Amino acid sequence: MSKPKILVQLDTDEQPSVFDGVVAVDAGVDHLFRHGNVDPVGVRDLVFGAIFTRGLDDLKSSAIFIGGSDVSAGETLLAAVKNTMFGPLRISIMLDSNGANTTASAAVLAAARHVLLPDAEALVLAGTGPVGSRVVRLLAAEGVQVRVGSRTLARAEATCDSVCKRVPRARVRAVETASPNATAAALDGVQFVIAAGTPGVELLAADARLAARALKVAIDLNAVPPLGIGGGEATDKAIEREGVIFYGAIGVGGDKMKIHKAAIRQLFESNDQVLDAEEVYRIGKQLAASS
Amino acid sequence: MSKPKILVQLDTDEQPSVFDGVVAVDAGVDHLFRHGNVDPVGVRDLVFGAIFTRGLDDLKSSAIFIGGSDVSAGETLLAAVKNTMFGPLRISIMLDSNGANTTASAAVLAAARHVLLPDAEALVLAGTGPVGSRVVRLLAAEGVQVRVGSRTLARAEATCDSVCKRVPRARVRAVETASPNATAAALDGVQFVIAAGTPGVELLAADARLAARALKVAIDLNAVPPLGIGGGEATDKAIEREGVIFYGAIGVGGDKMKIHKAAIRQLFESNDQVLDAEEVYRIGKQLAASS
Amino acid sequence: MSKPKILVQLDTDEQPSVFDGVVAVDAGVDHLFRHGNVDPVGVRDLVFGAIFTRGLDDLKSSAIFIGGSDVSAGETLLAAVKNTMFGPLRISIMLDSNGANTTASAAVLAAARHVLLPDAEALVLAGTGPVGSRVVRLLAAEGVQVRVGSRTLARAEATCDSVCKRVPRARVRAVETASPNATAAALDGVQFVIAAGTPGVELLAADARLAARALKVAIDLNAVPPLGIGGGEATDKAIEREGVIFYGAIGVGGDKMKIHKAAIRQLFESNDQVLDAEEVYRIGKQLAASS
Repeated sequence: MSKPKILVQLDTDEQPSVFDGVVAVDAGVDHLFRHGNVDPVGVRDLVFGAIFTRGLDDLKSSAIFIGGSDVSAGETLLAAVKNTMFGPLRISIMLDSNGANTTASAAVLAAARHVLLPDAEALVLAGTGPVGSRVVRLLAAEGVQVRVGSRTLARAEATCDSVCKRVPRARVRAVETASPNATAAALDGVQFVIAAGTPGVELLAADARLAARALKVAIDLNAVPPLGIGGGEATDKAIEREGVIFYGAIGVGGDKMKIHKAAIRQLFESNDQVLDAEEVYRIGKQLAASS
Repeated sequence: MSKPKILVQLDTDEQPSVFDGVVAVDAGVDHLFRHGNVDPVGVRDLVFGAIFTRGLDDLKSSAIFIGGSDVSAGETLLAAVKNTMFGPLRISIMLDSNGANTTASAAVLAAARHVLLPDAEALVLAGTGPVGSRVVRLLAAEGVQVRVGSRTLARAEATCDSVCKRVPRARVRAVETASPNATAAALDGVQFVIAAGTPGVELLAADARLAARALKVAIDLNAVPPLGIGGGEATDKAIEREGVIFYGAIGVGGDKMKIHKAAIRQLFESNDQVLDAEEVYRIGKQLAASS
Repeated sequence: MSKPKILVQLDTDEQPSVFDGVVAVDAGVDHLFRHGNVDPVGVRDLVFGAIFTRGLDDLKSSAIFIGGSDVSAGETLLAAVKNTMFGPLRISIMLDSNGANTTASAAVLAAARHVLLPDAEALVLAGTGPVGSRVVRLLAAEGVQVRVGSRTLARAEATCDSVCKRVPRARVRAVETASPNATAAALDGVQFVIAAGTPGVELLAADARLAARALKVAIDLNAVPPLGIGGGEATDKAIEREGVIFYGAIGVGGDKMKIHKAAIRQLFESNDQVLDAEEVYRIGKQLAASS
């Protein structure tokens, strides 16, 4: 008989996320150990406590989830956690600070329903942020030509550099999108756009979007009005508007949630997984293929 | 099959209450998410995490409990929680900071076993505090004539004003109870008295109580000696002493606990309940009627 | 039907121990209430919440575990917890800050497999620390002649005094072990040595150990290289090396874990137990006898 499933929730915010907790319970976790205010220094004892308490055969029934609103703090925590484990004394880990990995995966998979990924060209608005840069990584790994949009060209270029280091043969290009005109130019010729900006900020106005002739799919990950892409709704899920298929943040949310749950379940299948953007995306692809 | 029952315990104290946790478990909660040091600002993300994670049909399996020693802080939190929910995206909420709602309900129901509520006249000692003011509210809503006792008349009057705003046709009257003589006068002619003062403070001496001819029932919610009403015991439960029926804090505690558990269970029957004093009292009345 | 088993984990560290949590789950606890940063002042409300929530027959299904890295802080907490309970209103308590009680018990039981306890003479290196002083207490209570080693003779003497107050007829003697020569002298004639020093500090060099003719068993509770006793391995479990039977920290760890789990299970057998070093050791002895 296998041991009860324990998920150690390491959150960088003061209060550990209720969202991540509910999803874990609904994915079948038996016991949640919820920790807030976790920093890289404090990680050692928490990880030791998880890897030293069960026999090697049972370690797959313990796992770690890293969350919180600050994705960069989560990445630092992930590095610290990985660093603390050694040899066979390890348990599986998932990173999904701010929902970045599950959201980016769901967004790319939404696009893939309507365009043939390696061939279509994409624009990622706010492509330098935690979610946007993950979208860029995932698209680039699929062979897609990606324009990485940012208000500052230098930041877009930094993201391109970083993606090129991770993804061999990445076809990414920095574009400046500080003004409506620049954004319109950046959009010219792309088949799909994914807006990954901060809540309540419009990144692409309705008229600019209408003028983009090649555009087939528009995916907006901002749920708080004003939305990131003018003319859509947060609840849009493959809704056609003037020839363009729309997805809003809530429309993408259902798939995001399914991916999140499937990833949590997968944590307990072996003791050596590290689920970051690419691994979470792969789980999403399997879900899409089997549905 | 319904989802596991998750209760999000939002506590205004540093350490979330063990008392509220045990009662929740004994009421059938599957997973407790316990949060201490919760303030109105931090509430938003916690509530969003609870309302955005399950489908509309399953939201009734998530609920929020607000507790902590500071009733006024709990009330502020309740307002913030209610404010964060919108449309059908809501889950049921119970407030029972310092046990105020369950204690006040159990006290009124204890009295109702021995006097006919709308007809009897009542004195509530320390009627301006968190528990006392709830006792006044509940009695007033039952049509009882209530004398609201306080060491400061102005505070008693403020409570009367506040109760009148909530309860149409409330028959409440402020009485000053700063001295033994004033308390004796306030007690004259009432059929039952409920003492809701701070632990370890006597509000009504044994001789004053003996002199009150009309008095039938004395309920004392202070469990720490010296008790609030002289001559009784904390464990009294419908014990007759010199012609007066006594209840002590522990004597009332059994019913308080049953009401608390029933209220937690009811949280999971729909996703739109707000259980404050009146709703908790109604649950207590149903329990009393069915027992 | 008995109530769900609730273990209230009171930890003196900021983050409650994951180690203690996993062991509790694996020992069959249904609900863990995990509290970090617990201090003696805050203990009262937590304990009241545990003892006032269930009927006398059900109190055995609630229990308290005191942990954290600071054993002395844990002992202070234990005193405060015991002080808060009264009459029949009590629940069982276990202290195992820094694993001191379970580790000391497992170490003594490892020795007892190879030497006849009352007859053999022992040296406890770092015998003044939280684990070492518990080893001394347990050995002394078994009637063993114990040499209590410390770099400072006065500290060793203080430990001897404290043990003599607890254990009538204790045969303990302070020895100074500040230098290799002093340690070699302290080791002369003893049948077994237990090293309970801080991680990464060698207390007994391999050559000194080889020179000790009477020595039969060497037990080292330090898992971090350099180990406490030269020439052994942390994973040693009754491994013979040049005529001496070795145990390392990981080798002792399996039994320590079994004792820890058995102790947690025993907490829920009645509501009045206090499991400190002696009681935990007794549980370990029963396990050893029945295996």
